[in-house]
Amino acid sequence: MKPQKIGSKLWVIPGGHIPFGTNGKEPEFTSHDRLSILNTSGKEADIELTIYYQDRPPHGPYPICVEAQRMKEVRFNDLIDPLAIPLDTPYSCVLQSNVPVVVQFSRQDTRQTANAVTTMMAWPVA
Amino acid sequence: MKPQKIGSKLWVIPGGHIPFGTNGKEPEFTSHDRLSILNTSGKEADIELTIYYQDRPPHGPYPICVEAQRMKEVRFNDLIDPLAIPLDTPYSCVLQSNVPVVVQFSRQDTRQTANAVTTMMAWPVA
Amino acid sequence: MKPQKIGSKLWVIPGGHIPFGTNGKEPEFTSHDRLSILNTSGKEADIELTIYYQDRPPHGPYPICVEAQRMKEVRFNDLIDPLAIPLDTPYSCVLQSNVPVVVQFSRQDTRQTANAVTTMMAWPVA
Amino acid sequence: MKPQKIGSKLWVIPGGHIPFGTNGKEPEFTSHDRLSILNTSGKEADIELTIYYQDRPPHGPYPICVEAQRMKEVRFNDLIDPLAIPLDTPYSCVLQSNVPVVVQFSRQDTRQTANAVTTMMAWPVA
Repeated sequence: MKPQKIGSKLWVIPGGHIPFGTNGKEPEFTSHDRLSILNTSGKEADIELTIYYQDRPPHGPYPICVEAQRMKEVRFNDLIDPLAIPLDTPYSCVLQSNVPVVVQFSRQDTRQTANAVTTMMAWPVA
Repeated sequence: MKPQKIGSKLWVIPGGHIPFGTNGKEPEFTSHDRLSILNTSGKEADIELTIYYQDRPPHGPYPICVEAQRMKEVRFNDLIDPLAIPLDTPYSCVLQSNVPVVVQFSRQDTRQTANAVTTMMAWPVA
Repeated sequence: MKPQKIGSKLWVIPGGHIPFGTNGKEPEFTSHDRLSILNTSGKEADIELTIYYQDRPPHGPYPICVEAQRMKEVRFNDLIDPLAIPLDTPYSCVLQSNVPVVVQFSRQDTRQTANAVTTMMAWPVA
Repeated sequence: MKPQKIGSKLWVIPGGHIPFGTNGKEPEFTSHDRLSILNTSGKEADIELTIYYQDRPPHGPYPICVEAQRMKEVRFNDLIDPLAIPLDTPYSCVLQSNVPVVVQFSRQDTRQTANAVTTMMAWPVA
Protein backbone atom coordinates (compact mmCIF):
# COMPACT_ATOMS: atom_id res chain seq x y z
CA MET A 1 0.00 0.00 0.00
CA LYS A 2 1.31 3.41 -0.96
CA PRO A 3 1.80 6.01 1.76
CA GLN A 4 -1.49 7.71 2.59
CA LYS A 5 -2.89 9.89 5.30
CA ILE A 6 -5.14 7.82 7.54
CA GLY A 7 -6.43 8.84 10.93
CA SER A 8 -6.60 11.95 13.06
CA LYS A 9 -4.09 14.46 14.44
CA LEU A 10 -5.67 14.52 17.90
CA TRP A 11 -6.52 11.50 20.06
CA VAL A 12 -7.65 11.15 23.67
CA ILE A 13 -7.36 8.38 26.28
CA PRO A 14 -9.28 9.41 29.40
CA GLY A 15 -8.69 6.33 31.54
CA GLY A 16 -4.99 5.82 32.10
CA HIS A 17 -3.95 4.05 35.31
CA ILE A 18 -0.74 1.99 35.45
CA PRO A 19 -1.25 -1.00 37.77
CA PHE A 20 1.19 -1.13 40.69
CA GLY A 21 2.83 -4.51 41.19
CA THR A 22 3.94 -7.32 38.91
CA ASN A 23 3.85 -11.12 38.89
CA GLY A 24 6.06 -12.82 36.33
CA LYS A 25 9.24 -12.13 34.44
CA GLU A 26 10.07 -8.59 33.45
CA PRO A 27 9.74 -6.81 31.09
CA GLU A 28 7.19 -9.01 29.31
CA PHE A 29 4.92 -9.40 32.33
CA THR A 30 5.46 -5.97 33.86
CA SER A 31 2.15 -4.28 34.60
CA HIS A 32 1.80 -1.38 32.18
CA ASP A 33 -0.33 0.95 30.06
CA ARG A 34 0.76 1.40 26.46
CA LEU A 35 0.09 3.20 23.19
CA SER A 36 0.24 1.70 19.71
CA ILE A 37 0.57 4.40 17.04
CA LEU A 38 0.38 3.81 13.29
CA ASN A 39 1.75 6.35 10.81
CA THR A 40 0.77 5.29 7.26
CA SER A 41 1.80 8.63 5.78
CA GLY A 42 4.97 9.32 3.84
CA LYS A 43 6.19 11.79 6.45
CA GLU A 44 7.63 11.33 9.92
CA ALA A 45 5.08 11.95 12.68
CA ASP A 46 6.14 14.36 15.41
CA ILE A 47 3.86 13.66 18.31
CA GLU A 48 3.38 15.33 21.68
CA LEU A 49 1.58 13.83 24.65
CA THR A 50 -0.01 15.88 27.42
CA ILE A 51 -0.88 14.08 30.66
CA TYR A 52 -3.78 15.20 32.87
CA TYR A 53 -4.23 14.35 36.53
CA GLN A 54 -6.91 14.47 39.21
CA ASP A 55 -5.20 16.90 41.52
CA ARG A 56 -2.38 18.72 39.73
CA PRO A 57 -1.85 20.69 36.51
CA PRO A 58 -1.31 18.86 33.21
CA HIS A 59 2.25 17.88 32.34
CA GLY A 60 4.04 17.78 29.03
CA PRO A 61 4.84 17.70 26.29
CA TYR A 62 6.23 14.19 26.05
CA PRO A 63 7.70 13.89 22.53
CA ILE A 64 7.31 10.72 20.43
CA CYS A 65 8.51 10.23 16.88
CA VAL A 66 7.04 7.65 14.49
CA GLU A 67 8.78 7.23 11.14
CA ALA A 68 6.92 7.28 7.83
CA GLN A 69 5.15 3.95 7.12
CA ARG A 70 5.96 2.59 10.56
CA MET A 71 4.14 1.91 13.83
CA LYS A 72 5.40 2.34 17.38
CA GLU A 73 4.52 0.75 20.69
CA VAL A 74 5.20 2.97 23.73
CA ARG A 75 4.74 2.03 27.39
CA PHE A 76 3.57 4.89 29.60
CA ASN A 77 5.87 3.41 32.25
CA ASP A 78 8.80 4.48 30.08
CA LEU A 79 7.73 8.12 29.81
CA ILE A 80 10.02 9.76 32.33
CA ASP A 81 10.84 13.16 30.86
CA PRO A 82 9.69 15.84 31.82
CA LEU A 83 8.13 13.81 34.71
CA ALA A 84 7.79 10.06 35.29
CA ILE A 85 4.11 9.11 35.20
CA PRO A 86 3.37 7.80 38.68
CA LEU A 87 2.12 4.22 39.17
CA ASP A 88 -1.33 3.47 40.58
CA THR A 89 -2.48 6.99 39.73
CA PRO A 90 -5.35 7.93 37.44
CA TYR A 91 -4.38 10.05 34.43
CA SER A 92 -5.62 11.01 31.00
CA CYS A 93 -3.57 11.41 27.82
CA VAL A 94 -4.05 13.80 24.89
CA LEU A 95 -1.96 13.01 21.81
CA GLN A 96 -1.25 15.64 19.15
CA SER A 97 0.47 14.82 15.86
CA ASN A 98 1.59 16.88 12.86
CA VAL A 99 0.29 14.19 10.47
CA PRO A 100 -2.74 11.90 10.80
CA VAL A 101 -2.09 8.75 12.85
CA VAL A 102 -4.21 5.96 14.33
CA VAL A 103 -3.93 5.16 18.05
CA GLN A 104 -4.83 2.19 20.25
CA PHE A 105 -4.55 1.95 24.05
CA SER A 106 -3.77 -1.25 25.96
CA ARG A 107 -3.20 -2.32 29.55
CA GLN A 108 -1.52 -5.35 31.08
CA ASP A 109 -2.26 -5.97 34.75
CA THR A 110 -0.22 -8.64 36.52
CA ARG A 111 -0.79 -7.50 40.10
CA GLN A 112 -2.32 -10.90 40.80
CA THR A 113 -0.96 -14.15 39.36
CA ALA A 114 -2.25 -14.73 35.84
CA ASN A 115 -2.15 -11.64 33.70
CA ALA A 116 -5.17 -9.59 32.70
CA VAL A 117 -5.21 -7.58 29.48
CA THR A 118 -7.51 -5.06 27.85
CA THR A 119 -7.40 -2.86 24.78
CA MET A 120 -9.47 -0.21 23.00
CA MET A 121 -9.18 2.37 20.26
CA ALA A 122 -8.24 5.79 21.58
CA TRP A 123 -10.82 8.50 20.83
CA PRO A 124 -10.19 10.57 17.70
CA VAL A 125 -11.16 14.25 17.90
CA ALA A 126 -12.93 15.37 14.70
CA MET B 1 -1.57 22.47 26.01
CA LYS B 2 -3.90 25.40 26.48
CA PRO B 3 -7.41 24.76 27.71
CA GLN B 4 -9.64 23.66 24.85
CA LYS B 5 -13.03 22.10 24.40
CA ILE B 6 -12.60 18.45 23.44
CA GLY B 7 -15.30 15.82 23.48
CA SER B 8 -19.06 15.62 23.85
CA LYS B 9 -21.61 16.77 26.42
CA LEU B 10 -23.54 13.50 26.33
CA TRP B 11 -22.10 10.01 26.73
CA VAL B 12 -23.70 6.58 27.14
CA ILE B 13 -22.55 3.30 28.73
CA PRO B 14 -25.19 0.63 28.08
CA GLY B 15 -23.52 -2.33 29.78
CA GLY B 16 -22.95 -1.56 33.44
CA HIS B 17 -22.86 -4.54 35.83
CA ILE B 18 -20.79 -4.39 39.05
CA PRO B 19 -19.41 -7.89 39.80
CA PHE B 20 -20.44 -9.25 43.19
CA GLY B 21 -17.59 -10.68 45.24
CA THR B 22 -13.92 -9.85 45.65
CA ASN B 23 -10.64 -11.75 45.95
CA GLY B 24 -7.67 -9.73 47.15
CA LYS B 25 -6.96 -6.69 49.23
CA GLU B 26 -9.45 -3.83 49.24
CA PRO B 27 -9.87 -1.27 47.82
CA GLU B 28 -7.38 -1.96 45.02
CA PHE B 29 -8.79 -5.39 44.17
CA THR B 30 -12.44 -4.68 44.91
CA SER B 31 -14.63 -5.71 41.99
CA HIS B 32 -15.98 -2.53 40.44
CA ASP B 33 -17.21 -0.57 37.42
CA ARG B 34 -15.71 2.88 36.93
CA LEU B 35 -15.72 6.04 34.85
CA SER B 36 -12.70 8.07 33.78
CA ILE B 37 -13.68 11.60 32.75
CA LEU B 38 -11.34 14.16 31.18
CA ASN B 39 -12.15 17.88 31.17
CA THR B 40 -9.61 19.72 29.00
CA SER B 41 -11.66 22.92 29.01
CA GLY B 42 -10.93 26.03 31.07
CA LYS B 43 -14.20 25.67 32.95
CA GLU B 44 -15.36 23.32 35.68
CA ALA B 45 -17.53 20.48 34.36
CA ASP B 46 -20.83 19.97 36.16
CA ILE B 47 -21.93 16.47 35.29
CA GLU B 48 -25.07 14.50 36.01
CA LEU B 49 -25.46 10.74 35.69
CA THR B 50 -28.76 8.98 35.11
CA ILE B 51 -28.89 5.24 35.78
CA TYR B 52 -31.27 2.95 33.88
CA TYR B 53 -32.39 -0.51 35.01
CA GLN B 54 -34.11 -3.56 33.59
CA ASP B 55 -37.15 -3.49 35.82
CA ARG B 56 -37.55 -0.09 37.49
CA PRO B 57 -37.59 3.59 36.47
CA PRO B 58 -34.33 5.46 35.87
CA HIS B 59 -32.65 7.04 38.88
CA GLY B 60 -30.72 10.25 39.27
CA PRO B 61 -29.23 12.67 38.91
CA TYR B 62 -25.91 11.66 40.46
CA PRO B 63 -23.76 14.82 40.44
CA ILE B 64 -20.04 14.72 39.58
CA CYS B 65 -17.74 17.71 39.33
CA VAL B 66 -14.50 17.72 37.33
CA GLU B 67 -12.29 20.80 37.65
CA ALA B 68 -10.91 22.66 34.63
CA GLN B 69 -7.91 20.88 33.09
CA ARG B 70 -8.31 17.85 35.33
CA MET B 71 -9.55 14.27 35.02
CA LYS B 72 -11.52 12.23 37.51
CA GLU B 73 -11.87 8.51 38.17
CA VAL B 74 -15.20 7.49 39.75
CA ARG B 75 -16.25 4.02 40.88
CA PHE B 76 -19.93 3.26 40.38
CA ASN B 77 -19.70 1.36 43.66
CA ASP B 78 -19.22 4.73 45.37
CA LEU B 79 -22.37 6.34 43.94
CA ILE B 80 -24.77 6.08 46.84
CA ASP B 81 -26.90 9.23 46.64
CA PRO B 82 -29.79 9.34 45.69
CA LEU B 83 -29.63 5.49 45.62
CA ALA B 84 -26.74 3.06 45.93
CA ILE B 85 -26.27 1.22 42.65
CA PRO B 86 -26.94 -2.44 43.46
CA LEU B 87 -24.22 -5.06 42.90
CA ASP B 88 -24.66 -7.88 40.38
CA THR B 89 -27.41 -5.93 38.62
CA PRO B 90 -27.43 -4.82 34.98
CA TYR B 91 -27.66 -1.06 34.49
CA SER B 92 -26.95 1.61 31.90
CA CYS B 93 -25.50 5.08 32.48
CA VAL B 94 -26.17 8.34 30.64
CA LEU B 95 -23.73 11.16 31.42
CA GLN B 96 -24.61 14.80 30.74
CA SER B 97 -22.10 17.62 31.11
CA ASN B 98 -22.27 21.40 30.73
CA VAL B 99 -18.92 21.43 28.90
CA PRO B 100 -17.45 18.86 26.49
CA VAL B 101 -15.67 15.97 28.23
CA VAL B 102 -14.22 12.61 27.16
CA VAL B 103 -15.34 9.44 28.95
CA GLN B 104 -13.95 5.92 29.30
CA PHE B 105 -15.57 2.96 31.07
CA SER B 106 -13.66 0.19 32.88
CA ARG B 107 -14.44 -2.90 34.92
CA GLN B 108 -12.39 -4.93 37.37
CA ASP B 109 -13.74 -8.38 38.20
CA THR B 110 -12.09 -10.28 41.06
CA ARG B 111 -14.90 -12.72 41.81
CA GLN B 112 -12.47 -15.53 41.06
CA THR B 113 -8.81 -15.49 42.07
CA ALA B 114 -6.73 -13.57 39.54
CA ASN B 115 -8.34 -10.33 38.46
CA ALA B 116 -9.95 -9.72 35.12
CA VAL B 117 -10.10 -6.23 33.60
CA THR B 118 -11.73 -4.62 30.60
CA THR B 119 -12.11 -1.11 29.27
CA MET B 120 -13.77 0.76 26.40
CA MET B 121 -14.61 4.29 25.31
CA ALA B 122 -18.10 5.32 26.35
CA TRP B 123 -20.36 6.23 23.42
CA PRO B 124 -20.55 9.93 22.54
CA VAL B 125 -23.92 11.20 21.33
CA ALA B 126 -23.49 13.54 18.33
CA MET C 1 -33.90 12.77 32.44
CA LYS C 2 -36.94 12.92 30.19
CA PRO C 3 -37.39 10.25 27.54
CA GLN C 4 -35.30 11.06 24.48
CA LYS C 5 -34.11 9.31 21.38
CA ILE C 6 -30.44 8.43 21.78
CA GLY C 7 -28.50 6.05 19.60
CA SER C 8 -28.93 4.20 16.34
CA LYS C 9 -31.48 1.75 14.89
CA LEU C 10 -28.82 -0.54 13.44
CA TRP C 11 -25.82 -2.01 15.28
CA VAL C 12 -23.26 -4.64 14.34
CA ILE C 13 -21.08 -7.04 16.35
CA PRO C 14 -18.76 -8.89 13.96
CA GLY C 15 -16.86 -11.02 16.47
CA GLY C 16 -19.25 -13.26 18.35
CA HIS C 17 -17.86 -16.55 19.67
CA ILE C 18 -19.32 -18.18 22.80
CA PRO C 19 -16.53 -19.94 24.72
CA PHE C 20 -17.13 -23.67 25.25
CA GLY C 21 -16.58 -24.84 28.81
CA THR C 22 -17.09 -23.32 32.24
CA ASN C 23 -15.24 -23.21 35.56
CA GLY C 24 -17.21 -21.97 38.53
CA LYS C 25 -20.79 -21.82 39.67
CA GLU C 26 -23.54 -21.39 37.11
CA PRO C 27 -25.11 -19.20 35.92
CA GLU C 28 -22.86 -16.38 37.16
CA PHE C 29 -19.64 -17.97 35.89
CA THR C 30 -21.02 -19.61 32.77
CA SER C 31 -18.94 -18.71 29.73
CA HIS C 32 -21.07 -16.46 27.55
CA ASP C 33 -21.42 -13.62 25.05
CA ARG C 34 -23.98 -10.96 25.87
CA LEU C 35 -25.70 -7.79 24.71
CA SER C 36 -26.58 -4.78 26.84
CA ILE C 37 -29.24 -2.62 25.17
CA LEU C 38 -30.40 0.79 26.42
CA ASN C 39 -33.69 2.31 25.27
CA THR C 40 -33.93 5.90 26.57
CA SER C 41 -36.94 6.67 24.37
CA GLY C 42 -40.54 6.89 25.50
CA LYS C 43 -41.54 3.99 23.30
CA GLU C 44 -40.98 0.25 23.56
CA ALA C 45 -38.13 -0.99 21.35
CA ASP C 46 -38.94 -3.93 19.09
CA ILE C 47 -35.63 -5.41 18.11
CA GLU C 48 -34.62 -8.16 15.73
CA LEU C 49 -31.26 -9.90 15.65
CA THR C 50 -29.83 -11.62 12.59
CA ILE C 51 -26.94 -14.04 13.13
CA TYR C 52 -24.30 -14.62 10.45
CA TYR C 53 -22.00 -17.63 10.22
CA GLN C 54 -18.86 -18.72 8.40
CA ASP C 55 -20.36 -21.60 6.49
CA ARG C 56 -24.15 -21.38 6.43
CA PRO C 57 -26.83 -18.80 5.62
CA PRO C 58 -27.78 -16.13 8.17
CA HIS C 59 -30.45 -17.04 10.71
CA GLY C 60 -33.20 -14.99 12.27
CA PRO C 61 -34.94 -12.93 13.26
CA TYR C 62 -34.45 -13.34 17.01
CA PRO C 63 -36.91 -10.94 18.63
CA ILE C 64 -36.01 -8.86 21.72
CA CYS C 65 -38.21 -6.30 23.41
CA VAL C 66 -36.86 -3.46 25.59
CA GLU C 67 -39.42 -1.33 27.41
CA ALA C 68 -39.38 2.46 27.28
CA GLN C 69 -36.74 3.97 29.61
CA ARG C 70 -35.28 0.57 30.43
CA MET C 71 -32.18 -1.44 29.56
CA LYS C 72 -31.87 -5.16 28.96
CA GLU C 73 -29.04 -7.66 29.28
CA VAL C 74 -29.31 -10.68 26.95
CA ARG C 75 -26.97 -13.66 26.80
CA PHE C 76 -26.49 -15.09 23.32
CA ASN C 77 -26.45 -18.51 25.01
CA ASP C 78 -30.14 -17.97 25.77
CA LEU C 79 -31.15 -17.28 22.17
CA ILE C 80 -32.64 -20.62 21.15
CA ASP C 81 -35.50 -19.73 18.80
CA PRO C 82 -35.43 -20.06 15.74
CA LEU C 83 -32.06 -21.84 16.27
CA ALA C 84 -29.79 -22.16 19.30
CA ILE C 85 -26.53 -20.34 18.63
CA PRO C 86 -23.87 -23.05 18.74
CA LEU C 87 -21.02 -22.84 21.24
CA ASP C 88 -17.40 -22.43 20.16
CA THR C 89 -18.52 -21.20 16.74
CA PRO C 90 -17.70 -17.82 15.19
CA TYR C 91 -20.73 -15.66 14.39
CA SER C 92 -21.68 -12.05 13.76
CA CYS C 93 -24.79 -10.24 14.93
CA VAL C 94 -26.79 -7.45 13.27
CA LEU C 95 -29.32 -5.71 15.49
CA GLN C 96 -32.24 -3.75 14.05
CA SER C 97 -34.57 -1.65 16.20
CA ASN C 98 -37.67 0.45 15.51
CA VAL C 99 -36.41 3.19 17.84
CA PRO C 100 -32.84 4.36 18.51
CA VAL C 101 -31.00 2.29 21.12
CA VAL C 102 -27.42 2.02 22.37
CA VAL C 103 -25.68 -1.37 22.39
CA GLN C 104 -22.65 -2.85 24.16
CA PHE C 105 -21.16 -6.31 23.68
CA SER C 106 -19.43 -8.34 26.42
CA ARG C 107 -17.86 -11.75 26.83
CA GLN C 108 -17.09 -13.86 29.88
CA ASP C 109 -14.68 -16.73 29.33
CA THR C 110 -14.26 -19.25 32.16
CA ARG C 111 -12.82 -22.14 30.14
CA GLN C 112 -9.75 -21.99 32.36
CA THR C 113 -9.89 -21.33 36.09
CA ALA C 114 -10.07 -17.60 36.80
CA ASN C 115 -12.52 -15.81 34.58
CA ALA C 116 -11.57 -13.51 31.73
CA VAL C 117 -13.86 -10.68 30.63
CA THR C 118 -13.96 -8.19 27.79
CA THR C 119 -16.36 -5.56 26.55
CA MET C 120 -16.76 -3.05 23.73
CA MET C 121 -19.36 -0.81 22.15
CA ALA C 122 -21.16 -2.47 19.27
CA TRP C 123 -20.76 -0.61 15.96
CA PRO C 124 -23.55 1.81 15.06
CA VAL C 125 -24.43 2.06 11.37
CA ALA C 126 -24.93 5.70 10.31
CA MET D 1 -32.34 -9.70 6.45
CA LYS D 2 -31.72 -9.07 2.78
CA PRO D 3 -28.17 -8.50 1.58
CA GLN D 4 -27.12 -4.91 2.21
CA LYS D 5 -23.96 -2.88 2.28
CA ILE D 6 -22.98 -2.20 5.88
CA GLY D 7 -19.63 -0.93 7.05
CA SER D 8 -16.48 0.53 5.56
CA LYS D 9 -13.95 -0.54 2.92
CA LEU D 10 -10.96 0.50 5.01
CA TRP D 11 -10.26 -0.49 8.62
CA VAL D 12 -7.23 -0.07 10.87
CA ILE D 13 -5.89 -1.96 13.89
CA PRO D 14 -2.86 -0.12 15.27
CA GLY D 15 -2.05 -2.37 18.22
CA GLY D 16 -1.32 -5.87 17.01
CA HIS D 17 1.04 -7.98 19.14
CA ILE D 18 0.73 -11.79 19.20
CA PRO D 19 1.63 -13.06 22.70
CA PHE D 20 4.51 -15.54 22.74
CA GLY D 21 3.83 -18.67 24.75
CA THR D 22 0.78 -20.78 25.48
CA ASN D 23 -0.73 -22.58 28.48
CA GLY D 24 -3.48 -25.05 27.72
CA LYS D 25 -4.58 -27.26 24.88
CA GLU D 26 -4.00 -26.14 21.30
CA PRO D 27 -5.50 -24.75 19.17
CA GLU D 28 -8.28 -23.43 21.44
CA PHE D 29 -5.92 -21.97 24.04
CA THR D 30 -3.12 -20.91 21.71
CA SER D 31 -2.17 -17.28 22.32
CA HIS D 32 -3.28 -15.31 19.28
CA ASP D 33 -4.54 -12.10 17.70
CA ARG D 34 -7.54 -12.43 15.40
CA LEU D 35 -9.89 -10.63 13.04
CA SER D 36 -13.64 -11.13 12.77
CA ILE D 37 -14.99 -9.81 9.46
CA LEU D 38 -18.67 -9.55 8.53
CA ASN D 39 -19.79 -9.21 4.91
CA THR D 40 -23.55 -8.53 4.82
CA SER D 41 -23.48 -7.60 1.14
CA GLY D 42 -24.62 -9.79 -1.72
CA LYS D 43 -21.13 -9.90 -3.20
CA GLU D 44 -17.97 -11.73 -2.21
CA ALA D 45 -15.51 -9.51 -0.33
CA ASP D 46 -11.96 -9.53 -1.66
CA ILE D 47 -9.82 -8.21 1.15
CA GLU D 48 -6.17 -7.33 1.41
CA LEU D 49 -4.23 -6.82 4.63
CA THR D 50 -1.09 -4.72 4.91
CA ILE D 51 1.07 -5.21 8.01
CA TYR D 52 3.19 -2.39 9.43
CA TYR D 53 6.15 -2.80 11.75
CA GLN D 54 8.34 -0.70 14.02
CA ASP D 55 11.60 -1.21 12.22
CA ARG D 56 11.00 -2.55 8.71
CA PRO D 57 8.88 -1.69 5.65
CA PRO D 58 5.21 -2.72 5.50
CA HIS D 59 4.43 -6.19 4.18
CA GLY D 60 1.58 -7.46 2.06
CA PRO D 61 -0.85 -7.89 0.65
CA TYR D 62 -2.29 -10.81 2.61
CA PRO D 63 -5.46 -11.85 0.74
CA ILE D 64 -8.66 -12.85 2.57
CA CYS D 65 -11.94 -13.76 0.96
CA VAL D 66 -15.31 -13.52 2.74
CA GLU D 67 -18.34 -14.87 0.90
CA ALA D 68 -21.55 -12.90 0.49
CA GLN D 69 -23.70 -12.95 3.65
CA ARG D 70 -21.01 -14.69 5.66
CA MET D 71 -18.49 -13.78 8.37
CA LYS D 72 -14.95 -15.02 8.81
CA GLU D 73 -12.64 -15.41 11.78
CA VAL D 74 -8.92 -15.20 10.93
CA ARG D 75 -6.00 -15.66 13.31
CA PHE D 76 -3.00 -13.47 12.53
CA ASN D 77 -0.88 -16.46 13.60
CA ASP D 78 -2.13 -18.23 10.47
CA LEU D 79 -1.07 -15.49 8.05
CA ILE D 80 2.14 -16.91 6.65
CA ASP D 81 2.22 -15.78 3.03
CA PRO D 82 4.00 -13.56 1.91
CA LEU D 83 5.67 -13.51 5.38
CA ALA D 84 4.70 -15.14 8.67
CA ILE D 85 3.84 -12.45 11.19
CA PRO D 86 6.43 -12.81 13.95
CA LEU D 87 5.33 -13.55 17.53
CA ASP D 88 5.93 -11.09 20.36
CA THR D 89 6.41 -8.28 17.86
CA PRO D 90 4.35 -5.07 17.65
CA TYR D 91 2.54 -4.57 14.33
CA SER D 92 -0.37 -2.65 12.85
CA CYS D 93 -2.87 -3.90 10.29
CA VAL D 94 -4.67 -2.00 7.53
CA LEU D 95 -7.56 -3.87 5.89
CA GLN D 96 -8.88 -2.90 2.46
CA SER D 97 -12.00 -4.46 0.95
CA ASN D 98 -13.81 -4.10 -2.37
CA VAL D 99 -17.18 -4.06 -0.58
CA PRO D 100 -18.12 -2.60 2.81
CA VAL D 101 -17.41 -4.93 5.74
CA VAL D 102 -17.40 -4.63 9.54
CA VAL D 103 -14.29 -5.65 11.49
CA GLN D 104 -13.55 -6.57 15.10
CA PHE D 105 -10.14 -7.32 16.63
CA SER D 106 -9.55 -9.78 19.49
CA ARG D 107 -6.62 -11.17 21.45
CA GLN D 108 -6.22 -14.28 23.58
CA ASP D 109 -3.20 -14.31 25.87
CA THR D 110 -2.38 -17.60 27.63
CA ARG D 111 1.27 -16.92 28.42
CA GLN D 112 0.41 -17.36 32.09
CA THR D 113 -2.03 -19.99 33.38
CA ALA D 114 -5.61 -18.77 33.10
CA ASN D 115 -6.34 -17.12 29.80
CA ALA D 116 -6.81 -13.39 29.31
CA VAL D 117 -8.98 -12.04 26.49
CA THR D 118 -9.73 -8.64 25.03
CA THR D 119 -11.66 -7.31 22.08
CA MET D 120 -12.48 -4.03 20.33
CA MET D 121 -13.94 -2.73 17.10
CA ALA D 122 -11.30 -2.00 14.51
CA TRP D 123 -11.22 1.64 13.38
CA PRO D 124 -13.19 2.45 10.23
CA VAL D 125 -11.69 5.09 7.94
CA ALA D 126 -14.39 7.50 6.68
